[in-house]
Amino acid sequence: MTQITELVTPVCVIDRYRFINNVERVKKHIASTGATFRPHVKTLKSVEAAAYYAPPGTPITVSTLAEAAHFAGAGYTDILYAVTLTPNKLPAVYPLHENGVMLTVMIDSQAALDSLASSLEPLEKPLPVAIEVDVDGARAGLTPDDPELILLAKAINASAGLYFRGLVTHGGASYGCFDDASRQAMAQQENDALLAAKDTLANEGVLCDLVSLGSTPTALADISRDGISDIRAGVFTTFDCVMANIGICEPNDIALKVATRVIKVDTQKKRVLIDAGWMALSRDTGTQGQWRDCGYGLVCDIDGNLLDGWTVSATSQEHGTITHASGDVDPSRLFAFGDTLQILPVHACATAAQFSHYEVCEDNVVCERWHRINGW
Amino acid sequence: MTQITELVTPVCVIDRYRFINNVERVKKHIASTGATFRPHVKTLKSVEAAAYYAPPGTPITVSTLAEAAHFAGAGYTDILYAVTLTPNKLPAVYPLHENGVMLTVMIDSQAALDSLASSLEPLEKPLPVAIEVDVDGARAGLTPDDPELILLAKAINASAGLYFRGLVTHGGASYGCFDDASRQAMAQQENDALLAAKDTLANEGVLCDLVSLGSTPTALADISRDGISDIRAGVFTTFDCVMANIGICEPNDIALKVATRVIKVDTQKKRVLIDAGWMALSRDTGTQGQWRDCGYGLVCDIDGNLLDGWTVSATSQEHGTITHASGDVDPSRLFAFGDTLQILPVHACATAAQFSHYEVCEDNVVCERWHRINGW
Repeated sequence: MTQITELVTPVCVIDRYRFINNVERVKKHIASTGATFRPHVKTLKSVEAAAYYAPPGTPITVSTLAEAAHFAGAGYTDILYAVTLTPNKLPAVYPLHENGVMLTVMIDSQAALDSLASSLEPLEKPLPVAIEVDVDGARAGLTPDDPELILLAKAINASAGLYFRGLVTHGGASYGCFDDASRQAMAQQENDALLAAKDTLANEGVLCDLVSLGSTPTALADISRDGISDIRAGVFTTFDCVMANIGICEPNDIALKVATRVIKVDTQKKRVLIDAGWMALSRDTGTQGQWRDCGYGLVCDIDGNLLDGWTVSATSQEHGTITHASGDVDPSRLFAFGDTLQILPVHACATAAQFSHYEVCEDNVVCERWHRINGW
Repeated sequence: MTQITELVTPVCVIDRYRFINNVERVKKHIASTGATFRPHVKTLKSVEAAAYYAPPGTPITVSTLAEAAHFAGAGYTDILYAVTLTPNKLPAVYPLHENGVMLTVMIDSQAALDSLASSLEPLEKPLPVAIEVDVDGARAGLTPDDPELILLAKAINASAGLYFRGLVTHGGASYGCFDDASRQAMAQQENDALLAAKDTLANEGVLCDLVSLGSTPTALADISRDGISDIRAGVFTTFDCVMANIGICEPNDIALKVATRVIKVDTQKKRVLIDAGWMALSRDTGTQGQWRDCGYGLVCDIDGNLLDGWTVSATSQEHGTITHASGDVDPSRLFAFGDTLQILPVHACATAAQFSHYEVCEDNVVCERWHRINGW
C-alpha cells in the first residue's frame, strides 16, 4: 500500500471518491434530460478514467485525433472530433473511418469544405460532417441566422464522400457566468440558438441527426432539452478552481490535485516554497480578476483540508511560492520542510496536461494508476 | 524530404540555423570569460539538442531527476540538480551517484540538511551538496550575509555521507531588466553577491569547488568572472518573446516555433482561428504588461517573416485566436483557410514542455527529430 506521502513529487493525484461523486452528479443530471451524454474526454484523456463515465461503445468527444485513435483502440465507435478539420489531418481520419468508427468531423465555412472536398480520397462509405454553430460569439462557428449555414449543409450533402450529420455548439461564454440565473440564461441561449439553427435547416428540408451542445456549466442547467440529441461536458469529472469560482462546485469537490513538498519555509519573507512550479501546475491563471484569485492554485494540507487564505501566488519552472492573502502570517505555524501538500488546480485541463499519468487514491492510499494520451 | 507544410499541426519546429547561431553566440561569450559553461538543459530536455552546446562529459544543469537520469544515460557525468532536494527523491539520486555520476544536489536551510542527513543511506563515497545563494530576493537561497550560510556549509561537511561542494545562485530578477545598463548592473550584483558569499566561507576556512551563477540575461553580460567557476544559461538555445522583449535577442533570432494551420478567417470579427491553442502554445502570458504584449505568441508566415501587429491574443485548449493590434485589419488580406503559420513562443521553456519531440528544420525542410524527456 503506497501512501501519497511516499510518492515522488510533484505528482498528479485523483481522489476517486470525489471523482465518482462528480461523475455521478453529471451523469444523473443528463440522464434526467432524456438527451444522450457525449462527454468530452479532453481533460484527463484517459481510457481508465472514461470507463467511469463513458464506457467503450458510448459516444464521446475528443479534442485531437491522437485521442480519437487512442479511444478507438479501446473500443469507442462514435467519436466527435470537435475542432475544425484541416485536410492535412485526413491521414489520421481514414484508418478510423475504414475500421468502422463513426468519426464525425466538424467545419464552419465553405473554405473548409472546399479544402476538405478537394483533398478527400475516395471512400467506401461517406464521412459524417457536422457544422459548428456560434451561440455566443466566443470562438468558432456560424450564427444560426447566417445564410451560409443552409448553403454549407447542402454543399456537404452534395460533396462526394461526405454527408451532413448535424450541428455542434459549445456555450463557452458560460465560463463568464457567476450565478445560477445568468448560467441558466446562457444555457437557454445556447439551447435555443442551436434549435433555431436546426429549424432553419429543417425548413429547407435538411435534417440533423446530431444536435449537440454543452459545456460543464450549461450541461448542468435545468432546462428542457427537447430537440437536442447530445449534451457534452469535459472538466466535470475533476472540476477545478475556475468551476468553483463560478459556483458549479465547491473547492472541496475538486478531485484532481497536485501533491507537492515544502522545500523552504521562509519566515522572513513569510512565504513557503514547494517543488511544484508551472511545469506541474501549468501557467494557467484563469481566476485572475475573478472574485477569488487562486493564483496558480489553492493550498490544502495532506488530508485535503483547504488552508484558508494560502495560494500558490508565483511559479517558476520547478518552484512554486505559497503566500497568504494577508501577507503577514508566519508560515512556520502551518508548514515545515518536507511536508506534503495538495494543490487544487486553477484549470484541471491545463494541469492534467502536464502529466503522463495520474495516481488514483482513496483516503490518501494509491489504489490505481490511470494513463493519459498526449500529443496530436 | 518533408516540408513543414506537410506536418500534422500543431507541431513544435526548431530552426537549426537560428538554433546554432544562438548556441554559438552564448558559447563564444562564456568561453571568453574563462569560466566553465554549465548549460541548463531544462528548456528542450533533449540529448540531441544538447550535443550542440554541451556534449556528453561536459557539465550540465537539470531541473528534474528524470532529466538527470536521462542525461546520465547518454554519458553526462557532472550534473547539477538545481532544485532543493527533499529526501523522497533520494531513490533517484542513489543509482546515479553509485554509477559514478557527480550529481550535485542543492539545499538552502538547516531543515533541509537535517531532513537529508536523517534519510541518507550509507554511501561508499560522499554526495556533493551545494548551497543556494539568494542574490536578488527572487526565489530561494540564503543571502550572502546570512549567518546560517557558514553554519550550514560546516554542517554539511560534518554530516556523514555528504560534502560541501560550493555555491549556486540564479539571477532571476534579470528577467525584469529591459536595457543593457540595468542588465549589466544585475549581472554585477549577482556576481558580487556570490563572490561575497564565497569570501565569507573562505574566511572561515570553508572552500568552494563550485561557484556557479547565471541566467540567460546575466550570462551574456560583459563583466569579469574572476572567482566564478561556472556560468549557467537555459533558454539561450531558442530564445523567445520574453527574451526579445528584454532586448537579449531579436524576434528573428527565435529558433523554436509552433507550426499551425488557419482553420477560420473571420472577416466580420476581424480575426483568424488556428489549430494551436494553449495545449500547444502553453498558458504562458509572460509578456503581459511589458512594452510589447505578445499575448500567446507573435505570428509569422510560413517562411518565418513576422506579420507585424498580429498576435495570438486568446487561446482555448485547441484553438488560438489571432487578432491585429489595431483591431481593424481585414484578415483575409493576409490569411486563408489551411495556411501554415509559425508562432513565436512567449516562453520557450513552457511551449517546448507541451511536446514530446521537435521537428528540426533547415529552410522549412525537416532534417531531424529531437526527442524530449518529460516528467519527474
